[in-house]
Amino acid sequence: MENRMTEKKDHSEYFERLKAAHVAALWTIPGTLAEEPTLDEVPHVWKAKEIFPLLHEAVDVVDLGDDADRRALNASNPKRVFGTSHNLVAGYQLVLPGETAPAHRHTPSAIRLLLEGSGHTTVDGEPVLMEPGDLVLTPPMTWHDHRHEGDTPMIWLDGLDVPFVRGQHAQFAEEYPNEALQDLTEAEDVSVARYGAGMIPAERTWTKNHSPLNKYPYKTSKESLLRFHESEGRPSTGSSMEYVNPITGGPVIPTITCFLSVQEAGTKSRAYRHTPSKVFCVLEGSGYSIINGERYDWEKHDFFVVPSWHWYEHHANEGEDAVLFSMSDRPIYEPFGLLREQTADAVPAAKN
Amino acid sequence: MENRMTEKKDHSEYFERLKAAHVAALWTIPGTLAEEPTLDEVPHVWKAKEIFPLLHEAVDVVDLGDDADRRALNASNPKRVFGTSHNLVAGYQLVLPGETAPAHRHTPSAIRLLLEGSGHTTVDGEPVLMEPGDLVLTPPMTWHDHRHEGDTPMIWLDGLDVPFVRGQHAQFAEEYPNEALQDLTEAEDVSVARYGAGMIPAERTWTKNHSPLNKYPYKTSKESLLRFHESEGRPSTGSSMEYVNPITGGPVIPTITCFLSVQEAGTKSRAYRHTPSKVFCVLEGSGYSIINGERYDWEKHDFFVVPSWHWYEHHANEGEDAVLFSMSDRPIYEPFGLLREQTADAVPAAKN
Amino acid sequence: MENRMTEKKDHSEYFERLKAAHVAALWTIPGTLAEEPTLDEVPHVWKAKEIFPLLHEAVDVVDLGDDADRRALNASNPKRVFGTSHNLVAGYQLVLPGETAPAHRHTPSAIRLLLEGSGHTTVDGEPVLMEPGDLVLTPPMTWHDHRHEGDTPMIWLDGLDVPFVRGQHAQFAEEYPNEALQDLTEAEDVSVARYGAGMIPAERTWTKNHSPLNKYPYKTSKESLLRFHESEGRPSTGSSMEYVNPITGGPVIPTITCFLSVQEAGTKSRAYRHTPSKVFCVLEGSGYSIINGERYDWEKHDFFVVPSWHWYEHHANEGEDAVLFSMSDRPIYEPFGLLREQTADAVPAAKN
Amino acid sequence: MENRMTEKKDHSEYFERLKAAHVAALWTIPGTLAEEPTLDEVPHVWKAKEIFPLLHEAVDVVDLGDDADRRALNASNPKRVFGTSHNLVAGYQLVLPGETAPAHRHTPSAIRLLLEGSGHTTVDGEPVLMEPGDLVLTPPMTWHDHRHEGDTPMIWLDGLDVPFVRGQHAQFAEEYPNEALQDLTEAEDVSVARYGAGMIPAERTWTKNHSPLNKYPYKTSKESLLRFHESEGRPSTGSSMEYVNPITGGPVIPTITCFLSVQEAGTKSRAYRHTPSKVFCVLEGSGYSIINGERYDWEKHDFFVVPSWHWYEHHANEGEDAVLFSMSDRPIYEPFGLLREQTADAVPAAKN
Repeated sequence: MENRMTEKKDHSEYFERLKAAHVAALWTIPGTLAEEPTLDEVPHVWKAKEIFPLLHEAVDVVDLGDDADRRALNASNPKRVFGTSHNLVAGYQLVLPGETAPAHRHTPSAIRLLLEGSGHTTVDGEPVLMEPGDLVLTPPMTWHDHRHEGDTPMIWLDGLDVPFVRGQHAQFAEEYPNEALQDLTEAEDVSVARYGAGMIPAERTWTKNHSPLNKYPYKTSKESLLRFHESEGRPSTGSSMEYVNPITGGPVIPTITCFLSVQEAGTKSRAYRHTPSKVFCVLEGSGYSIINGERYDWEKHDFFVVPSWHWYEHHANEGEDAVLFSMSDRPIYEPFGLLREQTADAVPAAKN
Repeated sequence: MENRMTEKKDHSEYFERLKAAHVAALWTIPGTLAEEPTLDEVPHVWKAKEIFPLLHEAVDVVDLGDDADRRALNASNPKRVFGTSHNLVAGYQLVLPGETAPAHRHTPSAIRLLLEGSGHTTVDGEPVLMEPGDLVLTPPMTWHDHRHEGDTPMIWLDGLDVPFVRGQHAQFAEEYPNEALQDLTEAEDVSVARYGAGMIPAERTWTKNHSPLNKYPYKTSKESLLRFHESEGRPSTGSSMEYVNPITGGPVIPTITCFLSVQEAGTKSRAYRHTPSKVFCVLEGSGYSIINGERYDWEKHDFFVVPSWHWYEHHANEGEDAVLFSMSDRPIYEPFGLLREQTADAVPAAKN
Repeated sequence: MENRMTEKKDHSEYFERLKAAHVAALWTIPGTLAEEPTLDEVPHVWKAKEIFPLLHEAVDVVDLGDDADRRALNASNPKRVFGTSHNLVAGYQLVLPGETAPAHRHTPSAIRLLLEGSGHTTVDGEPVLMEPGDLVLTPPMTWHDHRHEGDTPMIWLDGLDVPFVRGQHAQFAEEYPNEALQDLTEAEDVSVARYGAGMIPAERTWTKNHSPLNKYPYKTSKESLLRFHESEGRPSTGSSMEYVNPITGGPVIPTITCFLSVQEAGTKSRAYRHTPSKVFCVLEGSGYSIINGERYDWEKHDFFVVPSWHWYEHHANEGEDAVLFSMSDRPIYEPFGLLREQTADAVPAAKN
Repeated sequence: MENRMTEKKDHSEYFERLKAAHVAALWTIPGTLAEEPTLDEVPHVWKAKEIFPLLHEAVDVVDLGDDADRRALNASNPKRVFGTSHNLVAGYQLVLPGETAPAHRHTPSAIRLLLEGSGHTTVDGEPVLMEPGDLVLTPPMTWHDHRHEGDTPMIWLDGLDVPFVRGQHAQFAEEYPNEALQDLTEAEDVSVARYGAGMIPAERTWTKNHSPLNKYPYKTSKESLLRFHESEGRPSTGSSMEYVNPITGGPVIPTITCFLSVQEAGTKSRAYRHTPSKVFCVLEGSGYSIINGERYDWEKHDFFVVPSWHWYEHHANEGEDAVLFSMSDRPIYEPFGLLREQTADAVPAAKN
């Protein structure tokens, strides 16, 4: 229902009094019965070729540990003050050889996808080795720090639910007591040994609301994806798998679910539209996406956002199969019946 | 972690380039490691004595059905453009004898608490008689209209999750096809007959994610509350009960849970603080609340908001026991581990 | 697959050796691929007119408290050594004015349906007043005793899951330490005050796997049933409601779910068949049931068993509406996908 | 409460009348208030060296396909007519090169653990390659047949819940229509490709109540177990992992959960006692178990039963690490609060 009122006379004084009383006339509020969601965010690609140099420049601007806990550049949706979408924020983070990023913990959740170099993230005492393509979790209120003993810079993609958590007035955070880095109380990659292969420790002690796995290694994930793709007959529309919490079959963290998809060289995906937003990061190959009718090119290590309720489809360039990682805020929609999804062969031409 | 960077030299040109690239340096974003939520909403009381006259004035401003679907005044938090809190919007709505408010449906959920007069809300074909104190639900995507054959004006409290649903880009709505009001396809108050007494139809057919009860009559609810209060030994801190979905024991609608509380004349409640926000409406009695150290007076039919993470306690005046209805967005917090709650004997004096 | 083997020669010596080795040849085991369940229990009616006098005679045989904890007669299915069905045992229990039955607790669950007189069952410190038609629970491992200060004998129907629990080797029991009766630590019927009216205490503290309600009063249950029956247009096939745990919408105890049904005078129900077994007790009226083609007459306070996978339908005699209470072991079937149900207008004539 | 009645006079005629009325006096029923479960089953080892030859002899007794659907020897607990325990039945099954076992399906669930040779089990159209140590599922009501194109006999361990399902009068079965073997409608091991590596297909279509994985390959399972054992510091008490449904983190089928355990050469496990029963099968190594004070020796491919509520511990012989597969009916206990478990350093000496 848009405002159907016929202004018989001037009510401006009345509306002034409403405003003073901190009430608004429902029939004057725009979009009260809008048939579809308002699209107030835009698609955008953050290109590694453009942002990586800015990240390296940041080394001169900020000392890790002294000046800041983290050296990270967060992607802001061009139509937002903060946040890559209304719920998610993505960005690149850089740690140089020999540097450490001190421990802290907070209610927002984070996923990390290693892009270049290798090093360790320690999560609640477990040192997790990060190698290219690995998905590493630092779930809500887990202590985490980063350390880098290697010899080439380490860059990863960060994904967090900060816009949602702060919007809910539910951000709490703590610095690690006394010292910069946590004690290493667990063996390296122990969570992968415990929960990483379709079996779990017979003594079931896990009670937290996120995955007990602190890492989903790329080697395993990609192999799994390609085997699935093969078993489905290598569909030209590509194949996608979801990373799951082995204890529940649910998302890796309560607010974010992650996917890995393959699109063979020279092929295109089906078209999708859904209320949740999604951030994609290119792990292999290059190509472009059509989002609400516009073309967005991408290549290795770029990431891009598809906001809520935008139609999109992916095209892989000739020459190399594309592997896309993605994260979605879908778990925020499901408990409330707010998930709507549509698919089509191709992005519809006209108005969306 | 607030910005601990020592500005060795002028990096303003660098930050300009970041901005142009749609990225923000994490170490410059305020509140990145804020230990507690930012309190950017304020408590406020909307007084029936002040707002009811404005609502009656609206009769001259807007014709129900012709000019607008609904004649309602929505409470805007003094620190927000829209919304009584970040997730909820409350307000008063008026229907005059003989008027009808045409049918529509939408993804936002609504609860109604009748304050004056009586009439019918039809929910998916079931005419629900509304009398003072009755809680009536119009859950997500249920067709609902209002009709009033009585002889005195009918005013109720509306409570909706519009700020949350629109913030999630998940508002969808529809006008009822062809005609203004729905057909009555069910007996009056049939849902109360089916699900309203601790038993349910032996053929379990309910699959929706909200309560099958379209009404929680005040007669039953208040009697239940007083019996509970009595059985607990009439604590001076008062007693509270939660309205539940009889199929799940969960909240009445997916995003909002409702309570009814009694505070005996001359007594005060304990103090509470929690991440969810809460809107209270006074059904009986009068008194005041201390919210983060400030006093807010209220009387019959007033409503007031306690934003996220504000300490509060209620005092009932001498002379009459106070009965408070309240609604909370707590169900939005629970699936994500974002619920934090504290209690104390009294609202702490100092900084909160 | 029944044994399709053609006995080419005599293998009896071979089968002897198998037996000695404690193995059985699968192809000789009867019913290995039976298409439908074997019906090795029979329907039966226990008549109050016959059993009540036997129960009163028991007063001379056994002293309550001195000779035995309980004075109860358990119904044994004519085709079983123990148990009214394979999972359930029903029976009558008698307590005289002035008598007490000492406290104990055990892993088997019990439901009680009061038939004559009135008195108290204490459940975990809460004295529960029992009046005719009231359903009272003594869930697993709750301390319970019975006391009777009235002036007429008190008789109730017992229903327990002893055959299931003992079959699972999971019976554990304890006598109450030191004294015959528990201390009364709660107000009378406090659980009804707390959980009995569609609302629950706002501080959610209940974590057990059975209903927090220790009583479902007949007054409320029957009123609810009749109101539902009325709202459905008083179907000639009758109406049924299920007693539910208000915290979960599930059964009142983990292994047993209970129903209350009305069949108007001179009408008959639809026909049903299901893998779970069911025990019915007549609270009002008289009539008969057709079970797998046979007629079984019943009147007030009789109870009868319908074993697994038997077709049945109920007929109420002219003159008075029939009200039937029933209990089912259906919750034992549901977690394992073993529930099968069929309905028909009438019990099929031929082979079942 | 055992019978505490003092028989003042002869009531035998009274008890005769009770019997005729199909009721039993509760105070005369043995074990009514037994403090602990009655142990009416015994431990037993079925030795491959003894049973495999009997199985090969069966080739002369029964023709697969002509005489019988399956050539299997089922282990009967020495104290039972049917069933290895009260809920489970285990046994060996033999298929010769060139033989096929025709398709059928039934409500009882089965697990298969391949011991010798290799071949295929087809499950709902998917040919599953079975190699030594592989756990293969044929869940409730899935069509399954076995075929063997190799050149050495194939023997596996069967594990089913037939005693439970038949005890619940819930066995239903069907022969495959028209033909002996199913059509192969899926690629070989497609379920492993889809669900076998911690990720699942992004289009979530699985709705059944058992694992979507038709195979847990031994290669993966053993590697996972050894990696976990290593990460725990190779405890001398051994390590155990549970096979899980990747969609729920629950058991592989609704009634049975499976484990794989390693006990290093020359070490012993802790002692356990629990209400569920358990069947162990030796995949590697040799040793013995102490069960309620008695010693039971075992070697490769033997299986043995530990009935409900018996204390047990395992000892691995010197020379080779022992790997034990096991299956438990624990999922039948959990929904009803009937699971009780105890652990100790060693099996208690005295009465249990």
